[in-house]
Amino acid sequence: MTKGNINVSVENIFPLIKKFLYSDHEIFLRELISNATDATLKLKHLTNIGEANVDYGTPQIEVKIDKEGKKLHIIDQGIGMTGEEVEKYINQVAFSGAEEFLEKYKDSAKDAGIIGHFGLGFYSAFMVAEKVEIITKSYKDEPAVRWICDGSPEYSIEETDKATRGTEIILHIAEDSTEFLEESRIRELLLKYNKFMPVPIKFGTKTETLPLPEDAAEDAKPETKEVDNIINNPTPAWTKAPSELKDEDYKNFYRELYPMQFEDPLFHIHLNVDYPFNLTGILFFPKLGNNLNIEKDKIQLYQNQVFVTDEVKGIVPDFLMLLRGVIDSPDIPLNVSRSYLQADGAVKKISSYITKKVGDKMASLINENREDFEKKWNDIKIVIEYGMISEDKFYDKSDKFALYPNVDGKYFLWSELEEKIKANQTDKDGNLVILYASDEHDQHSYVQAAKDKGYEVLLLDSPIVPHLIQKLEGSKEKIQFARVDADHINNLIRKDEPVISKLNEEEKETLKKTVEEGISDAKFTVQLEDLDSSDAPFIITQPEFMRRMKDMQATGGGGMFAMGGFPEMYNLVVNTNSELAGKILTTENAEEKISQIKHALDLAKLSQNLLKGKELTDFIQRSYQELAK
Amino acid sequence: MTKGNINVSVENIFPLIKKFLYSDHEIFLRELISNATDATLKLKHLTNIGEANVDYGTPQIEVKIDKEGKKLHIIDQGIGMTGEEVEKYINQVAFSGAEEFLEKYKDSAKDAGIIGHFGLGFYSAFMVAEKVEIITKSYKDEPAVRWICDGSPEYSIEETDKATRGTEIILHIAEDSTEFLEESRIRELLLKYNKFMPVPIKFGTKTETLPLPEDAAEDAKPETKEVDNIINNPTPAWTKAPSELKDEDYKNFYRELYPMQFEDPLFHIHLNVDYPFNLTGILFFPKLGNNLNIEKDKIQLYQNQVFVTDEVKGIVPDFLMLLRGVIDSPDIPLNVSRSYLQADGAVKKISSYITKKVGDKMASLINENREDFEKKWNDIKIVIEYGMISEDKFYDKSDKFALYPNVDGKYFLWSELEEKIKANQTDKDGNLVILYASDEHDQHSYVQAAKDKGYEVLLLDSPIVPHLIQKLEGSKEKIQFARVDADHINNLIRKDEPVISKLNEEEKETLKKTVEEGISDAKFTVQLEDLDSSDAPFIITQPEFMRRMKDMQATGGGGMFAMGGFPEMYNLVVNTNSELAGKILTTENAEEKISQIKHALDLAKLSQNLLKGKELTDFIQRSYQELAK
Repeated sequence: MTKGNINVSVENIFPLIKKFLYSDHEIFLRELISNATDATLKLKHLTNIGEANVDYGTPQIEVKIDKEGKKLHIIDQGIGMTGEEVEKYINQVAFSGAEEFLEKYKDSAKDAGIIGHFGLGFYSAFMVAEKVEIITKSYKDEPAVRWICDGSPEYSIEETDKATRGTEIILHIAEDSTEFLEESRIRELLLKYNKFMPVPIKFGTKTETLPLPEDAAEDAKPETKEVDNIINNPTPAWTKAPSELKDEDYKNFYRELYPMQFEDPLFHIHLNVDYPFNLTGILFFPKLGNNLNIEKDKIQLYQNQVFVTDEVKGIVPDFLMLLRGVIDSPDIPLNVSRSYLQADGAVKKISSYITKKVGDKMASLINENREDFEKKWNDIKIVIEYGMISEDKFYDKSDKFALYPNVDGKYFLWSELEEKIKANQTDKDGNLVILYASDEHDQHSYVQAAKDKGYEVLLLDSPIVPHLIQKLEGSKEKIQFARVDADHINNLIRKDEPVISKLNEEEKETLKKTVEEGISDAKFTVQLEDLDSSDAPFIITQPEFMRRMKDMQATGGGGMFAMGGFPEMYNLVVNTNSELAGKILTTENAEEKISQIKHALDLAKLSQNLLKGKELTDFIQRSYQELAK
Repeated sequence: MTKGNINVSVENIFPLIKKFLYSDHEIFLRELISNATDATLKLKHLTNIGEANVDYGTPQIEVKIDKEGKKLHIIDQGIGMTGEEVEKYINQVAFSGAEEFLEKYKDSAKDAGIIGHFGLGFYSAFMVAEKVEIITKSYKDEPAVRWICDGSPEYSIEETDKATRGTEIILHIAEDSTEFLEESRIRELLLKYNKFMPVPIKFGTKTETLPLPEDAAEDAKPETKEVDNIINNPTPAWTKAPSELKDEDYKNFYRELYPMQFEDPLFHIHLNVDYPFNLTGILFFPKLGNNLNIEKDKIQLYQNQVFVTDEVKGIVPDFLMLLRGVIDSPDIPLNVSRSYLQADGAVKKISSYITKKVGDKMASLINENREDFEKKWNDIKIVIEYGMISEDKFYDKSDKFALYPNVDGKYFLWSELEEKIKANQTDKDGNLVILYASDEHDQHSYVQAAKDKGYEVLLLDSPIVPHLIQKLEGSKEKIQFARVDADHINNLIRKDEPVISKLNEEEKETLKKTVEEGISDAKFTVQLEDLDSSDAPFIITQPEFMRRMKDMQATGGGGMFAMGGFPEMYNLVVNTNSELAGKILTTENAEEKISQIKHALDLAKLSQNLLKGKELTDFIQRSYQELAK
């Protein structure tokens, strides 16, 4: 048996880094600025603990385009490197300077926010540059050095003149990457990845107008001066303690994060946890109006203030994907498959921590200001309801904050609803029947009929309501939901009340047969009911079970009916005590009788939005003629 | 100045490969099977050109799980490696064997389909394995060798016993990757990445029932035997010439590609081009019913029969993203940013080649079988119309195949439509007015009014129709689209015809004032028209321009009204020659007059689906009372 060492062939590694390391070339800038930030924070740390005897000052990072020279400069005022360090950190690919530094200053550096894995990140420069220069001077009293490499394994290094501390990286941009010499492109990248990095980043200058002195002449023009244009906010809101922040600060941060959002968020939730994982962040409930820009303004994931991604699926529970904001955590594994992410222990804990925080916040908001919470309910309900369906722990708490509005805009907690309706809406079998409408306008006549009985009608109009109802019915005792148009109101909440009919059995049978023949439509099952004489003569209903299955299918249920869809089946309730029923029975002329029935059916169809096309045109024409008579 | 060579530190490269090389660990299997395929095809090539004096036979690749031993085996019967070759290809990371091979046998190997970049692909095994063994025997007469490495740079190699030619890779699966010891997971991966690879892949066995001999007894049970379970189809349809394939073969391939699709595709388009880029593939127009599974069954991109991705945005023009099928091309750059992809010359050419092919196919299909094409139009129109809007070259050809159906299910090409309507539908200014409805049921009464004049009414119901119309109006001379409910039909196609009114100017003024007071709703602008006495007395219309802007906004136009939305504004056309107009004028009782106007307005609202909620309930109740009288 022979032993040996695997040999990494350098000639082949460079093209590979260029090709495979990052699928997106643009991230080279993020990597280089992370390194520059790193170098700056390292110096801060060393001066803090007294190991570097220099003035830390107010260092910044500068990004500069030299379009003519086809160069991009990234300049920091950080720790710098000696010739020896360049040899060590740069010439050895994949040797992570930050890791070694962290190892050495383990405890004291932990909170200093040292970011990167120097080494490999630096080499991402070769994805866009044909030649890379480093000019660097260490904080130690040693000469500055200049290193050049054209992407082949050969480099050269020499002493050079550089008076100030820090590192300047010069990228000689390659032909296929000239987009990175455009000011707008670099600005875009800086704003995307570096907007909240902890060291100020200068990109160009801007003109500032100075205030006029108090004794200025009336026609005096204010003076202007050129100042550094700092592109980032080094201390974004989520890095501060909640106690330091006012409501206005959160709103300002929201606008900073999403400059194209004109509406204020409804609530914020400040996340802050050290153990068993490290996570800070701020989540916002946006006002989910019609301007549903979900694709664009999503939750952003950062690691130590460096933007990583806005694909947070798997990290944030699904029901919170409509939220906006920032999560910053070094404990979320990157570049792993989704299935791995979902199985990862830390990620699971993060996800359930966020869920818990959202539930707690909802409970405290409704307690603090019920009226305000009610006002916002319509904009947040889809999130809450989806959470109730999909996360059991969230559901278990939801009785504290989930609201059930009625059609008149009153809001009930579950316990309040129960209290309010239990006397009147418990049926003869002891089931509490909760009536609801999905659209108070479309179902207006049915809502009205329920109200006339003194019943409460909830307005449940989210697309996921069928699933929510299923969940509630499955977890609460002896309750049952029924949409107001599922049957005549007397049948929805059955009580032991005597019914009186104007018609005898024989008349009823005749009426039923007459109506069936008159409508001659198999979609409708005629069902006679002894209702109030003031109730509508014809009422079309659709049984709760069938309609709910249909609704569920529409919101992604699928299942066995997915191919063909449900058949359209309705009941036609005929009120035996209505005047019209009496008239139909007594009309002698057969044609007239049929036209009465057809017109009444048309009116019942109108209540259910079922009269369309030629049927509707004919109905209208007939009605105009009647009116002009 | 010093010069030196950059040193890649091996200790650090392994963790990096593991962490960064591929964001998805599962692809290790694709890489290893690509290598195995490679090794097999190399042998085939060498025997073909007479360099290897061995029997090629019918080699296959076997994938085997040893769950107890926590091992996964990948075994090929290919070219194998000598000890020297293992040293060269395996121990030098990133040394691509395939590249060297291609270099040596350049011309003859070109068509042999040598796939991979051996070397780095192999090392992806360490993403899931804590130890990797290679047992390999070359086709040359040399001893077999066994190589082991535990992911540290140290490996060991020794001679071993292996009688048969080929390579066996044994992965000792790591603790965090035991998912790859599950049969279902491996099957899933094989089906995802290797379903169409060119060498048969065996995964387990299956039981096959043998046919009964002809002289078998009546109660004889058929015999069964265990046979290899081959998981892939090494010669998928797209690798064959169109002339070899029947319609049925394309349908079978569609089902092979999308086993969960039960409906046949409508058309297929076979792609096959060598120059200036290499591309084969088959695209399918699916039946886009309600079961719009776009997310799931997308176009798949392959490179030499290896699945790469089903994210083809940027490669396939946007309007064809609803299609299904396969594209196989080695010329599409992978792992590049979207912006780079869109700028890449080869990709641009591929995209426009596909667009051209689709246009040509449509033109030939409609010529071959017009009736069949018409039947399928509803399912393909969204694709064609989107193509017409977004790709100018496609639009330029579209007169050959774009159909314009009328509400009665007749289909016209543009030239046919023009021919049909130009006599009757050219207005007094010489503009050809094309009438359309978006829903023949909702707009029934308006459609009827147009038909009564002998006009053709198109049914244009795709959501992107407003944009299509804009495009057509912008490119064709003197034409103009108008939806049937944009105004009274007489005003939509104005002709120099005398109008007769039953009312004098004074009566008209009184009528207008009376109606305005009666409806007392600022949403409606009253507009008197001298129409036929048989026309409806009240008609609600919505001007074409405003409605179209609104529609465009709904389909993602946005623009200046995006925030507030358009105001709801309608015209109320009052027919001065209708009986009802006369009656309103002559009715003395003010209350009765108002109730006539209100009821007529309700009926007009019904035509436009505008009567809702309480208004509708009241209308129905009033009508029931009237009916029972």
